[in-house]
Amino acid sequence: MNPEPFLQLDRVIHEKGRLAIMSLLAASPHLSFTELRDTLSLTDGNLTAHVRTLQESGYVAITKSYKGPRPLTTFALTPTGEKAFASYINLLEQIVQQMKQAQ
Amino acid sequence: MNPEPFLQLDRVIHEKGRLAIMSLLAASPHLSFTELRDTLSLTDGNLTAHVRTLQESGYVAITKSYKGPRPLTTFALTPTGEKAFASYINLLEQIVQQMKQAQ
Repeated sequence: MNPEPFLQLDRVIHEKGRLAIMSLLAASPHLSFTELRDTLSLTDGNLTAHVRTLQESGYVAITKSYKGPRPLTTFALTPTGEKAFASYINLLEQIVQQMKQAQ
Repeated sequence: MNPEPFLQLDRVIHEKGRLAIMSLLAASPHLSFTELRDTLSLTDGNLTAHVRTLQESGYVAITKSYKGPRPLTTFALTPTGEKAFASYINLLEQIVQQMKQAQ
């Protein structure tokens, strides 16, 4: 078995909450705080912490605006985030193939 | 996108060091401490901590014996570990499929 793909996995994306967030954002142009939180059953605190980590890595952009009188926070993948996500999927696919052969 | 497979990922196996250890053990009947450490370029402390977590979860069995005058520690997946690994691969495969569609 080749351990390289395991070692190369991006720790920022690999955490399962962030992996779910990145996957949802890859499938939509942008999502609101509420949409992400409710789809993934995360607490406000957990979602905030994960999004901060993703933002600090340059993977997610945060937009604050208003929907009528209410503040609206939306998230979207950045081009850097899209590239990192694509590399991660690629590695994960190699790993799944290796794991299936290992069994 | 269905968030279920993400939420179901086993945190014990998902950590990338432990994922690599489980995959190596799935491919071999048993491996020594030195073999695992050197293949994965882990420190003694890291490998010890990961193996302890895997042992506490019932996924890995540790055998201490002697090779000539030298103590030899070897690791192997337990039947519980094999089942957990199989479920994990299954979920990960679903996730890779979803992620590829999300792009």
